[in-house]
Order: sequence, then C-alpha cells, then structure tokens
Amino acid sequence: MLINCVRRVLPRRLSAIKTKPCTRRCCSSSSAESMDQVRTLLQLCVDRHYVSPGQTNVELFQRGMYCNYGPLGTELRRNLLDQWWHSVTRSRAQVFGVNTLSSSSDRAADGGGQLRMVESELLRQILDQQELSKEQLIQEVHRLLERSPSVRTNLLQGALEQFVPSMELVNRKLPFGLAEMGLCLQPSGGSGCPAEVTQTSLVWFCSTRTSSQWLDHWTRQRLKWWRKFALSPSDFSSSEVLEEELEEPASRGVRIIYNFPWGQEVLETLWSRGSSELLHTHKGVRSKLQSRDARKSVPHVVSVTGNMDRGVMAFLSSSLQQLKREDSKQRLQHRKVLKLHPVLAPVKVALDIGRGATVELRRVCEGLLQEFLEAKISAWPGYLNTVPTSMEQLNAKYDEMGVLFSMVISENTLESGLLQVRSRDTTIKETMHISEIRNFLSKYISAADI
Amino acid sequence: MLINCVRRVLPRRLSAIKTKPCTRRCCSSSSAESMDQVRTLLQLCVDRHYVSPGQTNVELFQRGMYCNYGPLGTELRRNLLDQWWHSVTRSRAQVFGVNTLSSSSDRAADGGGQLRMVESELLRQILDQQELSKEQLIQEVHRLLERSPSVRTNLLQGALEQFVPSMELVNRKLPFGLAEMGLCLQPSGGSGCPAEVTQTSLVWFCSTRTSSQWLDHWTRQRLKWWRKFALSPSDFSSSEVLEEELEEPASRGVRIIYNFPWGQEVLETLWSRGSSELLHTHKGVRSKLQSRDARKSVPHVVSVTGNMDRGVMAFLSSSLQQLKREDSKQRLQHRKVLKLHPVLAPVKVALDIGRGATVELRRVCEGLLQEFLEAKISAWPGYLNTVPTSMEQLNAKYDEMGVLFSMVISENTLESGLLQVRSRDTTIKETMHISEIRNFLSKYISAADI
Repeated sequence: MLINCVRRVLPRRLSAIKTKPCTRRCCSSSSAESMDQVRTLLQLCVDRHYVSPGQTNVELFQRGMYCNYGPLGTELRRNLLDQWWHSVTRSRAQVFGVNTLSSSSDRAADGGGQLRMVESELLRQILDQQELSKEQLIQEVHRLLERSPSVRTNLLQGALEQFVPSMELVNRKLPFGLAEMGLCLQPSGGSGCPAEVTQTSLVWFCSTRTSSQWLDHWTRQRLKWWRKFALSPSDFSSSEVLEEELEEPASRGVRIIYNFPWGQEVLETLWSRGSSELLHTHKGVRSKLQSRDARKSVPHVVSVTGNMDRGVMAFLSSSLQQLKREDSKQRLQHRKVLKLHPVLAPVKVALDIGRGATVELRRVCEGLLQEFLEAKISAWPGYLNTVPTSMEQLNAKYDEMGVLFSMVISENTLESGLLQVRSRDTTIKETMHISEIRNFLSKYISAADI
Repeated sequence: MLINCVRRVLPRRLSAIKTKPCTRRCCSSSSAESMDQVRTLLQLCVDRHYVSPGQTNVELFQRGMYCNYGPLGTELRRNLLDQWWHSVTRSRAQVFGVNTLSSSSDRAADGGGQLRMVESELLRQILDQQELSKEQLIQEVHRLLERSPSVRTNLLQGALEQFVPSMELVNRKLPFGLAEMGLCLQPSGGSGCPAEVTQTSLVWFCSTRTSSQWLDHWTRQRLKWWRKFALSPSDFSSSEVLEEELEEPASRGVRIIYNFPWGQEVLETLWSRGSSELLHTHKGVRSKLQSRDARKSVPHVVSVTGNMDRGVMAFLSSSLQQLKREDSKQRLQHRKVLKLHPVLAPVKVALDIGRGATVELRRVCEGLLQEFLEAKISAWPGYLNTVPTSMEQLNAKYDEMGVLFSMVISENTLESGLLQVRSRDTTIKETMHISEIRNFLSKYISAADI
C-alpha cells in the first residue's frame, strides 16, 4: 500500500497525507523511486533554506500546511502570493481586494465556531474557584467559550459579510468579486492540534443564469495560472467533482490537482455554491442583496479557494530536476537543479568573489548588490561567505537553491569591467560588462512574466 | 478631560484608546476641533472604502488594530507592508526574511501560552461527561488546555528560534537580522476579547559591544522611513524610553511615535534586549549560539517591532487635508483631499467617460485600464459607474479617495487621441495624448519612490 510506503520512508505522522486510492503497482520499484524523489526534495528544501529544519516542521510542509519557512521559502511564498494577487485582482476591473478579520466574536456561522481563542488565564481562574459546584463550573466554562472569539477556517465567510458594502463599488451591478489571502486554521479532526494553511480566495458574485459559465471561466483562468509557472504543465490538471462527492450547498465543483510523487493532491477548489450562504449571512434580508439588474433574485456565489502552502510545495516538486553527468575527473555526478520559474525564483542572482584583492572585490560586490536591490532584483550575497569553495561546489549549491544566474567578480573584473555570468538553466557562462548586467537581468525576468 | 471628549465624540469603547496624559487645555476649542478632525477622518475612511462600515470595526481601526479593510484600505496596507519589507530586507545584505508559525504546541515560552486555540467540540465533550467528578473534570480541562496550541502575541519568539539555522547563511558571522511580518494576537487584559494586529519585526543579532550603536542605526533608519511617506514629517518622532519604564530584559528602548489628533501613539518600538531570551529559547546551550568572531559570547538582540495597522491609520491621518474654497457658484466648499504618498496611494489613476458614444468610450477605457494593470499601475474603473455625476462631484470623490490622477475619456479623445489628466495635488488639468499616459504615470510614481 502506498500509505505503508509513505510510513516507511517519511517521518512519523506523515501517513496523514491524503494519497490517491491505492493501486496495485504502488509498491513497485517506480514507487520506491518516487519515495526517493520525495526524500531528496525534502532534504534539499531544508539544506537550501526553503524550509526550516525539524521533523514536525518538515511534516507540516509536506502535508501542505503553513510552516516555518527559511529565507528562500519565505521569498518563494511571497512571489507566489504576489502573482496570485495580481492575476486575480487585475484580471478584471470588477475584482476588489479585501482584508477581513481572522477571528471574530460575532461570527458563529463560520465553521460553527469550531475553534476558539481562549485566554488560558481566564479559564484557569474559573477552574480555581473552589466554591463553584460542578454544574456552575460547567456553566461558567461554557460561557467563557461562547464569548471567546472564533477563528476562521476559511476566507469565504468574510467575503460574504463584505458583499453589501462592496456592492456600492460597482453601482449594485453584477458580476463582481472579492479577493483575499491569509492564514486560516484547519481543525484537527480530534487530535486537538489544528494546523494553519495559507489560503487564497476569490468569491465571485453573479447571476444564477451565468454561474456555471463563470465556474468554467475561472477554472480555465486558474489552471492557466498554475501551468504558467510549471516545468511540466501537464502535472497540473482540473477535474470535475463527482455528483456524489458534492458538499452542501454546492451544485457543481472543480478541483485543480497536482501530481506529487506520492499521488495527487488538491491545490485549489472551485464551487458553484448558490445563494443560501449569502442569504444566511445577511439573515435572509433579500432586499439588501438584490442587484440592480437581476430582477429581485439574490446573487449566486462561485468560490475559488487555493492552498498556497501546497502551491509552494507543488512548484518546488515540479521544478526539481535530477541529472546525471560526468565531472571534469570523469566521476559520475548527480546534479540537482531547482528550475523554478524566473518570476518565482527567490534569488535571481548570486554574487561571489574570485581570486584577487579581497577588499576591493568586496566593494564592487556591495555596489552591484545595492544596484540589484534598488532594481528589485533579489540578489544573494555569496561574497559574505569566506570559506574557500570550488567553482563546482558553488555552482551545485546555487543550482539547488534555484538561483537564476551567478557571477564571480575577480581581479579581471577590476581591470576590464568584464565578468562571467553563469545561467542555471543552460550552465553556459557568458562574458558581460559590469554595466550591462542589471539591464540584462531586468529584461530576462520581465520577459518571463508574460 | 480628553478621555471624556473622546467618549462624547466617538462610539462606545473608544475610550480604551491610549491617549497622552491629559493637560488642562484638552477640553479647549482646539481639542474640540481635533475631535472633529477624527470624526471627519473616520467617516471618510468608511465612505471611501478604506475601512468597512460597522461601529465595532471602526473602533478596532482607530485603536490601531487589524480590522475589516475595504478595497482601498487593503491596497494601502499592502503597499505599506511592501515598502516595509523592501526597506528592511534590502537595506543590508545580512537581512533575511522568514515566516514562522503563528500557533504552536511546543512554544510555551511565547507569552506564556496566554492565548490558546481550543477546539470547542473537544471541550464540550469533556463538559458533557456525566460520570466525571468535579476534580476529574478540572483535570481534563487543564489537560486539553495544555495540549491546545498557543497563539503568538509577537514575532520575536519565532525569530529567536530561527537563529540557529540562519547562522549558517552568514557563515556564523555577526551581525545579521531576521525580518517577518504577520498577524499577532493581543491579549485583552481580562475582557476575553483579544484583538489582532499586523506586526512587522526585525530581530537583529549583533555583538554586545555594538548593540547600542545598532539601536541608534535602526532608529535613524526607521524614523527616516516613516517620514519619507508623511505629508508633515515632524508629526513622526522618536523618543528614548525612560529608565524607569524599561521592561525586563531590555537595557535601552526607543519609541517611534505619531501625533494623532487625539494624542501620541506608538508606531514602532526598538529594544536592546541582551542575550537572555535567546539563551532561554535555546535552553541555555551557549555552544549553539556562538558566532565565529565574538569570542564565545552569545549574540545580543536588538528588536524593531512595528504596528502596521496603526501605521495605516497614521498615514491616513497625516494625509488628510481640509481646504476651504469657493466653488463656481461662489458657495463656500470644504474640499477634503487625502494626499497619500504616491507609492502608498491605493489607486493611482481613475478612468471615467464623458459625453459621447458610450460603447466606444467604454472600450477605450477597458483598453487603457488593461494597459495600466499590466504596468502594475492600480487603476479605478470609474466608467463602470453609470449614475450621472457632475465633474465637481467626481473630483471631490477622487480627492477623498486619494486618487493621484483622474482622466475623462470623451468624444474628443476618440477623434484626436487627446484627453485631460487632472492631478489630485495641484488640481490642474493637463492635456495629454492617450499613448503617453502610461509612461507619464510610471515615471511619476517611480520618481516618488526614491
């Protein structure tokens, strides 16, 4: 069983990951290979500062949960969220960004108040009251629970609440949408240990008549977006939710799925949800909800909900290429390259120093670094690392980090202004003048962002 | 008393805002005027979609807490956080961004586990167990509380935990820093209603010898940053924390303060914290914490912690100008302009249509809007609003929204390609060719971002 494979290879509790229904071939050599792949990927993510070390943390990461990210993971997640935000809020004039409360005392509707933020001191005070009978104690604890804010498990409820003030923005005309991203809690299902997830949400309000078309529209848009950044786009796919799997009150659903080495996982879900939740949120007051043109009917809601922690994991998994090649001494080398899309790559360029007068070379590096940072090109200060490293080791490291270009400033640069720029994807080194590099990088990155 | 003024003018519970120690002049006419100012500002923020309506929500906003933001507030907050991120992570090569868990079962140290995320179903199950004695019940509730994750009240603890893996990045050399931003809970102080706040945090690790200099360095940097976006920079100031106000284990502290109409409030706090918390987080294992060059001493921590919800409020307050002028019919008009800094302004340009063939004009608008969005210039689709509005009303609305430029596409534009671009700050209308506008705006915004 795949579940067992996972258990054997991966640390404790990882069996909780949802995997595809097991097929007979899953314990074959191809599965062992894919488990190797997972191990390599996770190790690389820790070694190259995408994810912080620690078993629990790596488990969270693999389960598609929010975790402690290292500097590279933080930047990758930021880039991904930025791309999502721009693609959704800028795709149409009628999409507006909002920020809604992540905990609320009023909001019992959201997830039925499953998770409550309790001040432990207040609870302890109740438990310490010797004079209370058992019944009084129970009553007091219930009361504290009721008035403790409930924590959101999704972003839908916030958007439904913002529907009324937002209608003014569009002159009470449909369709329009509200976009938001943020952390949401996922109930543990009994273990008492809820985890967090970075959710993206577009809630689209439209007429009932057009809702199915809009679901199709957003499915196409979203799938296109995921595939835009993928090394092998076909690993991202969409699939209609079967009728028997539909959850109330949805009438249709589509899942966007990524093929991980251990099986398929859902990255994003689109639901055509009808009007009932919107009506319920606004206590059934239809008059508040009616649009100008929809003849007294209440808008239909299409929700598009993504898990961007799993998105980060998917793009890391999709980007890792393992190549075998011989090195200069004809030893077989395993080259690992993280071929992240140029707009997602957390580090665009790394700067190192070669042989020569260290103080002067460092000064050139610092100048260049500043120039890159001002142009919003994220740069890696490799020159700060003073431990001697061979060029091969350095290249291997930057390939694993997914650094697009690396360059070495040497004595020669001081004399001629020329330096060698190595590309991650081609491994070819090109000689450039120091004054051209910023423009070259800017153009390279923006050309990839179309 | 100022407190009473606040009570009278502002909605319930606003008296909770921290105000400056009351001086005798606070109930004078100047104070009444400043309360008027506050009321005007809050009303404008709601009317112009910076903050969602609702008394509780506006109260949160004014108290400098995270709240439901409308589309304009969401974009302003985003811009501000982006600016903070770039200014901190790009100011020096040795600052790295991280993302750390916002709730954790392991982390008791952070705020002593004051706030716990409790699954209400599990608590209810315990309370429903008839067979438990009172003592057993108390024990079970305690146990549930202990294993419920504690929620962070600040970002410091996460950064201290990330110190060890991060040291590798800099080859175990000091100084370096870890930057993070995110929501943090603020305990309620007894009411049972904790609120959230958008915190920014830079935790800077340096040698003991240099810590005071670094505190000064970061104070200068941060004050410069706040003032960069202010209409009247002198309203932002820094002040050294008095010795008797120092909190354990800090040896020095500096506050960055904004002068709100109702008094001073702290935007950001810098502490020189010593090494004790870092040591405590790593269970006293000095060998893990020693840097390469600091001769066995444990690094010193300087923390820089900002409240960006209050930052949003400060810049809105700082930007609101109220001007009196006569309109075309010589009636006295109160013009309100939100002169937000060009890089912070949530909407850079608004597009409307004048007289002429609506369908064609709309098409031109849609084309222009798309062009702006692709150039990452946030644009407002005013043309979607089909309710007839006078130019005066339209300009007044955009001034209150803080829109940098507005333009009207008319019949004339279709013929000559020319249109009039009105500036928020000068109110002057300039005629431009439609093909020049994007470049003009890009240059205007980037010129302001220096």
